[in-house]
Amino acid sequence: MAGPKGNAVIGQSGGPTAVINRSFIGAITEARKHGEILEFYGARHGINGMLNNEYVPLFEQPNFVLQQISCTTAAALGSIRHKPSSDECNRIFENFKKMNVRYFFYIGGNDSAETAYIINSFAAHEKYDLRVVHIPKTIDNDLLITDHCPGYGSAAKYVACAFMGDNEDNRALKGVKINVVMGRNAGFLTAASILGRQYPKDGPHLVHMPESPFDIDLFLKSVDKTFKDHGRALIAVSEGINKQGIYNLKTGEKPEYISTWLNSFVNLNLPKKYMPKGENKAVEVDSHGNVSLSGSGMMGDILAYIVKSTLNIKRVRSDTLGYPQRSFPLAISEVDAREAFKVGVDAVIAAIGDHFDEGSVAIKRVDQDGIYKIETFISPLQSIQKNTRSFPKDWITEDGKIDERKFREYVSPLVGELPMAGRFVKAIF
Amino acid sequence: MAGPKGNAVIGQSGGPTAVINRSFIGAITEARKHGEILEFYGARHGINGMLNNEYVPLFEQPNFVLQQISCTTAAALGSIRHKPSSDECNRIFENFKKMNVRYFFYIGGNDSAETAYIINSFAAHEKYDLRVVHIPKTIDNDLLITDHCPGYGSAAKYVACAFMGDNEDNRALKGVKINVVMGRNAGFLTAASILGRQYPKDGPHLVHMPESPFDIDLFLKSVDKTFKDHGRALIAVSEGINKQGIYNLKTGEKPEYISTWLNSFVNLNLPKKYMPKGENKAVEVDSHGNVSLSGSGMMGDILAYIVKSTLNIKRVRSDTLGYPQRSFPLAISEVDAREAFKVGVDAVIAAIGDHFDEGSVAIKRVDQDGIYKIETFISPLQSIQKNTRSFPKDWITEDGKIDERKFREYVSPLVGELPMAGRFVKAIF
Repeated sequence: MAGPKGNAVIGQSGGPTAVINRSFIGAITEARKHGEILEFYGARHGINGMLNNEYVPLFEQPNFVLQQISCTTAAALGSIRHKPSSDECNRIFENFKKMNVRYFFYIGGNDSAETAYIINSFAAHEKYDLRVVHIPKTIDNDLLITDHCPGYGSAAKYVACAFMGDNEDNRALKGVKINVVMGRNAGFLTAASILGRQYPKDGPHLVHMPESPFDIDLFLKSVDKTFKDHGRALIAVSEGINKQGIYNLKTGEKPEYISTWLNSFVNLNLPKKYMPKGENKAVEVDSHGNVSLSGSGMMGDILAYIVKSTLNIKRVRSDTLGYPQRSFPLAISEVDAREAFKVGVDAVIAAIGDHFDEGSVAIKRVDQDGIYKIETFISPLQSIQKNTRSFPKDWITEDGKIDERKFREYVSPLVGELPMAGRFVKAIF
Repeated sequence: MAGPKGNAVIGQSGGPTAVINRSFIGAITEARKHGEILEFYGARHGINGMLNNEYVPLFEQPNFVLQQISCTTAAALGSIRHKPSSDECNRIFENFKKMNVRYFFYIGGNDSAETAYIINSFAAHEKYDLRVVHIPKTIDNDLLITDHCPGYGSAAKYVACAFMGDNEDNRALKGVKINVVMGRNAGFLTAASILGRQYPKDGPHLVHMPESPFDIDLFLKSVDKTFKDHGRALIAVSEGINKQGIYNLKTGEKPEYISTWLNSFVNLNLPKKYMPKGENKAVEVDSHGNVSLSGSGMMGDILAYIVKSTLNIKRVRSDTLGYPQRSFPLAISEVDAREAFKVGVDAVIAAIGDHFDEGSVAIKRVDQDGIYKIETFISPLQSIQKNTRSFPKDWITEDGKIDERKFREYVSPLVGELPMAGRFVKAIF
């Protein structure tokens, strides 16, 4: 049976990416071609808009607006991180019924897939005919089933270029440079730093992903060795490096993050007026009355400090690559943009199709004669909502390094062409 | 008298930029066309290479290598921050004489101009015929005389795009976001953040440059107001914000940097083995035995913390934009690249010319019928070596904001075209 005639709601959820709007506009563009979807509503800030009836009428948007939005980074509808309670599902479905919503698309990572799963289960329980499709996006590339996630290729391109530029910078003014890369529990984005290497002695010379245990003393030893070998060291460190390594976690065990550990040594003794007052829940104060600076922003600085103080190296710097990784408008990978658009299109095709199964659009590679090619398919929401995947274990060599050949084969088509650095010939040095 | 026949040395100095290699290759390209310069030597790491006789033979480089290097960010010859002593000048000139060096080009900011000035004075004192030309580059845009500096346009493009992306990100997930921008004593690069604004409510909503005094309590008040008005706040803060404001400094007075002030509240009580040992000069320990984390990396985090704790806002983040500002290979402004090449070319033309005066290549605007156009001229080294310039006072309005019309008129041609963000029409919210 073809999809019912009715209205559709689409929302965006989780951290923005450079191409999440491509998927969004892909879905609208496809829906316009068919009669099943009568009006397409964009929920402002995902679940929040669905709770408060804040929608953008999407079919009324002029083409040039859709075109511009598809090329704009981050989530044009607004995003959110929130899992709906059953009470909230009740309110959402009251609205859905009034609005005759028969299609629901949710763009996001595995948490968003969980939201889609909850909405889908609620509809089934209510016997309300609703076709739910999750559209994948993450910069972390940590969704199960799919070969890769839209959003990752562009973030990887940013990281590759940041390291490429920083490698040149570090060659020009030698020292130790530590860059902290996003991806709390998966090393795919940190691994992309190796695309910055174009010549034998290029950095990053050390790459630390959350999958493998991080030992500060071993780290210092390898920084020391690298600095002695190259006169410099460019280092990629995931924000999620931890003591055990994700590979070694037992079921239910939480990673002990290095950022948390390092932050625990920081005391911020600000003048009293700048310290949190009694009822302030925005900041955390531990049982000792110490404040903790959240996040991984400080990790790079403290690691740099430890390198300086223990290895006696003068020029040690760190950067936390930060939000430009997910929203810089000049590092969009063309392949990533195209595929992001396609998963939006294919979500609508699946939703209005004759044989509908709820699910998430997943990508598989179907390379032909060595030429990169993909197809999509629908994987049940259940299959991707709870867990995430790690960097494949068999892409790590015995000495704990990234298998560069395997990883480049995987990642290069997603990132596309990169700038090429020049090197002198016949240099007298 | 036309320039003597002899060899030339060129060096790069100070912090890298995205286009410093264009100037470098511009100089080689032009020199190849003329007979005066017999061989062109590239000094490795500036003064250092000149002291240790580490040179790259530049005329022997294949064209494709020069082409690639011109498009590579950061300093291909290697850079340095060092002012030669008179003893070092003696050693340099011993080498110069042996090598028959008659032309010396030094690419850098005002410190590099000072080095060129020292070399030039030494040559004059020794009555050694040497033609010295300084080729300008900075991302800070703080050189005197010249209308603007090569390197600035690309850095400004990076900053504009980072804010543009971050503005979208901050609209999607609302909160307070503080970005720390390079430029310790001049606000030009921080000011470029306003190019991220494309629509009336876009950020950055607050911009703090080193020229104006930074008062943390007034800052918190304006963050509070902005957050109440917009439900979010995107903030640009120069790494060099200080208590007095550069405009108000008396002669010889040093700015009291906010980063130093905030870092003074941080105690890092690391396990003893990670603390500096007796003879370690890489890190500073104050008279109280406290360690100080150098640089401005922590400033954003601490400011974010203070916003959280005093204004009780949950989602407060900060990024320090870091080295990608000066070396990201995908944010090169075409105009900047072209002009960087031109100042390299014009340095050689000046050096081999009939009427030679030592100096630095400076840019002036000679717009015709409203079309952006520049010419270069030579300004004496003396005129730019000691001091730097600030953001023009008459580009600041009475309420302390950047005069957006004046500044955009100045900066837009240097940055070139920027991506354009899309916005919905007929939004129900």
